[in-house]
Amino acid sequence: MKDVRILEIKESVFADNDQQADQLRAELKEKGVFLLNLMSSPGSGKTTTLTRTIETLRDTFKIGVMEADIDSDVDAHTIAKTGAKAIQLHTGGMCHLDAGMTRQGIEGLEVGDVELAILENVGNLVCPAEFDTGASKNAMILSVPEGHDKPLKYPLMFSICDVVLINKIDVMPYFDFNLEKCREYIAMRNPNAKVIPICAKTGEGMDEWTNWLKEQVQEWNA
Amino acid sequence: MKDVRILEIKESVFADNDQQADQLRAELKEKGVFLLNLMSSPGSGKTTTLTRTIETLRDTFKIGVMEADIDSDVDAHTIAKTGAKAIQLHTGGMCHLDAGMTRQGIEGLEVGDVELAILENVGNLVCPAEFDTGASKNAMILSVPEGHDKPLKYPLMFSICDVVLINKIDVMPYFDFNLEKCREYIAMRNPNAKVIPICAKTGEGMDEWTNWLKEQVQEWNA
Repeated sequence: MKDVRILEIKESVFADNDQQADQLRAELKEKGVFLLNLMSSPGSGKTTTLTRTIETLRDTFKIGVMEADIDSDVDAHTIAKTGAKAIQLHTGGMCHLDAGMTRQGIEGLEVGDVELAILENVGNLVCPAEFDTGASKNAMILSVPEGHDKPLKYPLMFSICDVVLINKIDVMPYFDFNLEKCREYIAMRNPNAKVIPICAKTGEGMDEWTNWLKEQVQEWNA
Repeated sequence: MKDVRILEIKESVFADNDQQADQLRAELKEKGVFLLNLMSSPGSGKTTTLTRTIETLRDTFKIGVMEADIDSDVDAHTIAKTGAKAIQLHTGGMCHLDAGMTRQGIEGLEVGDVELAILENVGNLVCPAEFDTGASKNAMILSVPEGHDKPLKYPLMFSICDVVLINKIDVMPYFDFNLEKCREYIAMRNPNAKVIPICAKTGEGMDEWTNWLKEQVQEWNA
């Protein structure tokens, strides 16, 4: 198995996270690095979605991935197999990443020539939404088995995301998931959020998502 | 729709949560109230499992349910339909409940003659695991679509649970979920955890779970 670096990140010492986030975003912009913050519940398919995304975009951009987890390094190994630069961040029990912690990851990843950096945040719909990581854009995945009522229960997460991927649409027939209601609930929280139904496993809808992401990266570095 | 009380709970003022939890547990024991703390990811089926559980045990015990959510009151309404005493706790953005917050819920529920009180914690595999709520027992639900690797990624949650329900086993054919591997990973974290595969929707496995819970309540109040 290809060796993957594991970085134990430390709790931030900064009081003003918003300021730290703005500063990191400005520095990344300067360097030509687009940072995507990808969030979701545990098990919604972040890693599978990322794997597919990298396969589609790796000839267009130099990609680097930070896999944040409380423990384990299975995800970073999976991502490393795609050929992307990958690093595992261990949060030491912490439930989210803030800008200071993201900065440690960016330094550990040694972004250098990376054009698209992706942070796979800790699987959690609550805490990661409260901390600006310094990302250029926020994305989240809601998977069909979780139910269409999640925007009602985790309002902040949906309100801060630029794009919501509805994953695992292949199993829609086996769950009581109402896509129209889901779109309506997301719009209540965030009328500007783009909603893209996908199936990371089969590839359905992935073109719309990777095209959207490609445009964002190109605009950022224009 | 039956009116459900919504209680806005406040952040705890106590420094020593473990002590507060022990004290609450002792008081509940004194009153003959068994408190179950039910945790899981968003959308793993906590409310459906609870509904079935109440239907089975409502003739045996007087049941009260606290539904904790950041926002919305859909779950408390669903539970109230079963005839159980139900209250909605709003955490005001907080990602977990500690003992002080659980006490506010217990007081709001007015446990009086309740024998089995159930706290449906915030959907989150990280933070709720860090705070003893004062519960008699901790239970968690892992649903098949989330994947069998979750005990590797959220070790603390699995290590503090007395019982792990593996829910949505009806959709096992559509997901790459290895039940034996899952049992093995759970045992690595917590060799004493009882593992019960269930399908809250169809009722499969629910007898084993409700029998286990019944025994725990009876032992507690013996």
